[in-house]
Amino acid sequence: MEKKNAVVLLSGGVDSSTVLAFAKSQGYELYALTFDYNQKHKRELDSAKMVSYTLGVKKHLVIKFDLREIGGSALTSEMEVPKTSSFILHPSSFIPATYVPARNTIFLSFGLAWAEVLEAENIFIGANAVDYSGYPDCRPEYLKAFEAMANLATKISVEGRFRFKINAPLIYMKKSDIIKTGMALGLDYSLTWSCYDPQPLTPPSPPLLKGGKGGVIPCGRCDSCVFRAMAFQEAGVKDPLLR
Amino acid sequence: MEKKNAVVLLSGGVDSSTVLAFAKSQGYELYALTFDYNQKHKRELDSAKMVSYTLGVKKHLVIKFDLREIGGSALTSEMEVPKTSSFILHPSSFIPATYVPARNTIFLSFGLAWAEVLEAENIFIGANAVDYSGYPDCRPEYLKAFEAMANLATKISVEGRFRFKINAPLIYMKKSDIIKTGMALGLDYSLTWSCYDPQPLTPPSPPLLKGGKGGVIPCGRCDSCVFRAMAFQEAGVKDPLLR
Repeated sequence: MEKKNAVVLLSGGVDSSTVLAFAKSQGYELYALTFDYNQKHKRELDSAKMVSYTLGVKKHLVIKFDLREIGGSALTSEMEVPKTSSFILHPSSFIPATYVPARNTIFLSFGLAWAEVLEAENIFIGANAVDYSGYPDCRPEYLKAFEAMANLATKISVEGRFRFKINAPLIYMKKSDIIKTGMALGLDYSLTWSCYDPQPLTPPSPPLLKGGKGGVIPCGRCDSCVFRAMAFQEAGVKDPLLR
Repeated sequence: MEKKNAVVLLSGGVDSSTVLAFAKSQGYELYALTFDYNQKHKRELDSAKMVSYTLGVKKHLVIKFDLREIGGSALTSEMEVPKTSSFILHPSSFIPATYVPARNTIFLSFGLAWAEVLEAENIFIGANAVDYSGYPDCRPEYLKAFEAMANLATKISVEGRFRFKINAPLIYMKKSDIIKTGMALGLDYSLTWSCYDPQPLTPPSPPLLKGGKGGVIPCGRCDSCVFRAMAFQEAGVKDPLLR
């Protein structure tokens, strides 16, 4: 039987890479979609490429546009990436400076366009609402509203050929369970990248990071580094990126 | 009193240019947003620039990305732009080959991002559902669903500072009434561009089209040219672009 196509949003971080491995385990033909939005942490694009290659995706598409023209986030403007994790400052109900206005909406919109062309009923996203992130566009009610809108927006759904589904298999998982899931699926987390604000690499270079854009290492202090460290610690696993 | 900001999606065609003039008449500070998505009819970008300039927008932002990488439309792939208007072939309930998968969803998503940064409660779009277009993402039920999603997606709405509104003031207007509205507002339609499949310009050049990208003239036969011609005829006005 022919495999069904799925579009998977892939940043190259822990969550989206785990989702890609999960979608593969469900037997989908994988179409990975990554965005070069002129983010400060472009290093994640290399990770997306490596993870895509390793998991044997059918096609990896990188769509390029410049969200610095819009700004409004520490990831896309002169605003500094906070170096005391906002998780520590405000353990709940605070939207951090790394929030990028409408980012998941933009990403899912391109995902929807590609899914319609590929006749892929299923779109996967690594959104997670349990451990702290604070991003409004990672919540289940948001994803449900996007799905409803998507099925009114597109030719294929209006013609009744199928309904698009936005799948967020990690949405209710603890970060440490995400790591355990990925490891059970054989995912190599040394290929992934999380840091929002990479630092220039000083020799001797950690071999795994060689060849990354600009030669950079994780800062170890931004939200994303802190969550990653907590997740690996809770899972009782050493982060292979930092080996 | 300080003017309120509004984001207006502007292709440079008749509908979106009329909406820009309408939003100006309502007293908004205008932020016009145009997309260079590698469409075949890039000539519309020049029109968007001219219309923006003439209407005194505060900022005109052109976001660039390549929808040909996704394809699926006669406007963004090798597929030919139909030269017998699909309106004539199928006067209703047919989605034409010029449909671009999820285009308005992508456009509105960037509009939402910019609106959040500008603290602009109102986003304007030239969608029209009365005269034939057949695009699912021009229908009121779609726009309503986008608005609901937008208000779950964004920091500013989740924090309760305001609700985004997607305004489509032309949605129930006849094309000829759109023209009449724009003319009453003093809009110069010679600056606008509609043709999906421009033809290379052969001398003598119509002076109004000089300086356009590549030097092109409207084909006169695609859907968009046919609707434009019908609209001007019904309105009892000569199309100043064709003077």
